Amino acid sequence: MRIFFAAQLDADEAQAWRVALQTAAPGHDWVVHAPAEDGADPLVRAEVAVVANPPPGSLARVQGLRLIQSLWAGVDRLVADPTVPANVPLARMVDPCMTAAMVQSSLWAVTALHRGFFAYARQQQQAQWWQAPQRRAEEVSVLVLGLGTMGAAVSAALAAQGYAVTAWRRIDAAPGPSGVTVLHGAQGLEAGLAAAEVVLNLLPLTTHTRGLIDAGFLGRMKAGAALVNFGRGGHVVEADLLAALDAGTLAHAVLDVFATEPLPPSHPFWPHPRVTVLPHVAALTDLRSAAQVVAENLARLQAGQPVLHQVDRARGY
Amino acid sequence: MRIFFAAQLDADEAQAWRVALQTAAPGHDWVVHAPAEDGADPLVRAEVAVVANPPPGSLARVQGLRLIQSLWAGVDRLVADPTVPANVPLARMVDPCMTAAMVQSSLWAVTALHRGFFAYARQQQQAQWWQAPQRRAEEVSVLVLGLGTMGAAVSAALAAQGYAVTAWRRIDAAPGPSGVTVLHGAQGLEAGLAAAEVVLNLLPLTTHTRGLIDAGFLGRMKAGAALVNFGRGGHVVEADLLAALDAGTLAHAVLDVFATEPLPPSHPFWPHPRVTVLPHVAALTDLRSAAQVVAENLARLQAGQPVLHQVDRARGY
Repeated sequence: MRIFFAAQLDADEAQAWRVALQTAAPGHDWVVHAPAEDGADPLVRAEVAVVANPPPGSLARVQGLRLIQSLWAGVDRLVADPTVPANVPLARMVDPCMTAAMVQSSLWAVTALHRGFFAYARQQQQAQWWQAPQRRAEEVSVLVLGLGTMGAAVSAALAAQGYAVTAWRRIDAAPGPSGVTVLHGAQGLEAGLAAAEVVLNLLPLTTHTRGLIDAGFLGRMKAGAALVNFGRGGHVVEADLLAALDAGTLAHAVLDVFATEPLPPSHPFWPHPRVTVLPHVAALTDLRSAAQVVAENLARLQAGQPVLHQVDRARGY
Repeated sequence: MRIFFAAQLDADEAQAWRVALQTAAPGHDWVVHAPAEDGADPLVRAEVAVVANPPPGSLARVQGLRLIQSLWAGVDRLVADPTVPANVPLARMVDPCMTAAMVQSSLWAVTALHRGFFAYARQQQQAQWWQAPQRRAEEVSVLVLGLGTMGAAVSAALAAQGYAVTAWRRIDAAPGPSGVTVLHGAQGLEAGLAAAEVVLNLLPLTTHTRGLIDAGFLGRMKAGAALVNFGRGGHVVEADLLAALDAGTLAHAVLDVFATEPLPPSHPFWPHPRVTVLPHVAALTDLRSAAQVVAENLARLQAGQPVLHQVDRARGY
C-alpha cells in the first residue's frame, strides 16, 4: 500500500520511526510529508496516513485515504483539528510496552507518596534524619481516573500491590479489574475524591475532561491528599492547582504533563517544594512494539478486517 | 509465662510495643528491664526475654530463660554480644508486613533507577527539561544479594515486574523463586557483579559479609551501574563507595543504612549528587504483625513445639 508519513518530530526521532515502521511492515510504499517550495502541501495519493503531531493541514490534500493511524495514544489534537478528514477511520496507538511503562511510573509515584520518599528527598537537601511512621498499603486509598487500557492496567497493578484502589470513569460501562471498586458520573467522582489519599489521573483529554482538575475538584479532595497527573496538561487548571499546593490542602503533586511543554524555565512548578516535575516521560511509546501495532493494522486493512483501537470521534478517544 | 522486656527505645516506642505485645499475647506476666539505683542489673526470673537493642549485660542476670525473642530482623549485635546467653535459643523477627515494606522500597528504588526518576529530580532543581530514552524492564538486569525471606520476596516481585533478576547467596542451598537465576560463592558473585546494572543488597550482617562492599567489589561492577543498600551499614566500606561515586564508575547509590546512624550532618553522602539518602526506613517492623509473630512463638514454647525463625548463631542469622 501507499503510506503517507506526517510527523513533526526531531530528525533523529523521525528517522528512528521510519526504520522501525519499515522493519515491522515491509513491502509498502512510504511517502514522507514535505511541503512544496511555496509552503503549500502537495496533492498526494495514499491509502494510509501514519501520523505523529502532523503539520496542520498536511492531511487535507491526501486522496484515497482509508485509515489515519496515530503513533500517539492521545488523539485530542487530531480530533480537534478541522483539517484532518473526519470521514476517514482514525486509530490511536495502544502500545503494550507503553502500558507497561505507565504501570511502572504509577507504582513508583504511589509508592513514593505512600512511603514518604519525596519527603525524604527534601530532608536530604537539609541533611535531616527523621523517620515517618510506616503504614500498610491496604491503609492507602488510591483513586484512578480513567479505566481505558492504561487505567485498567494501572488499577490492577496497584491492587496487586495491596493498595485500596477505586477507579472512576465518566460514563458507566463494563466492570473494572478484580479487586477494584468502580465509580462513575459526577456523584461517583465526588465520593471518590472525598475518600482518596492519592488521585492518579489517566483520563483521555476530551471536551468533557478538559479543565476537570480545577478549584472545585481540588476542594473536594481530602485535606493532605496528593495528585498524580499522568494524563494531559489540559486536564488541570494550573493556577487552581498552585493555589491548593500553596494553601497546603494538597500535600503533593507529581506532574508529568503541562499546559505548555517543555515547562517554561520560569514556571512556579519547578522550584515548588510540593511538586515533583517529570518531563513528560511517565510512558513513552516504544518504537518497536508500536511499529508492530501499526503493521497489524495495515494487515487488517489489506485483509478487509476492522482495524484495532479505532477512535470514536464523538467521544474523543 | 514470665516475660522480660529489655529495649533501648524512646519512651513512646517502648510503650507502643508493650501495648501491641500485651494485646497480641494476653495473660502473661511482663517485667520491664530497669537497672537498680546503683546501675547494676537485678537478678530476674523469666522464661522468655523479648528484646530490641537490649542494654548490654541486661540478659546476663535473667534466670530460667528458655527463649530470647528479638523484635528486630537483624540480630548481628545480639549474636556478637558476649553477655547474651549463648545456650538459650534465639529467634529473630520475620514480620510479613516488614517483608511487604521491603518489596515496596525495592520496587521503588529499582524502578527509579531504571526509569531515570532520580536524574529527573536533579533536573528539576535546575529547571531542566530532558527526556531519557525509555527501556523495557526486561533490558534491566538486577542482582539481589541475599535469598532469605526478604531476598526471595524482593527477587520474585522484581521478576514479576519484568526485570531480569539474578540472586546471589553466599552458600548454595535451595533454588530461588521462579524466574530468578541463582548464583552462589565467590565466583558466582563475580559473574553476577559483572552483569548487573543494579545491585541490591539484602544480606544479613555476619562476620562473612561485613565489609563485603569494598573497592574490590565495586571494581567488579559494570561501569555505570547502581547500588542499593537496604542491608546494613556494616556491609559497606564507605570510603571505597565514595571513591567509586566520585570517579563516576558507580552511577548512583540508594543508601538506607550507614556505619553511623543517624547519618552525621557533615557526612559527604548527604550532599552527594549521586547518592539518595534514606533514614533507615526501607522496611520498619510493623508493631501489630510483629506482636502476632511473638504471640505465635510464645504459644509454641508453651506447647513444646519448635519456635519459628530460630537463629543459627554460627551462621549469624
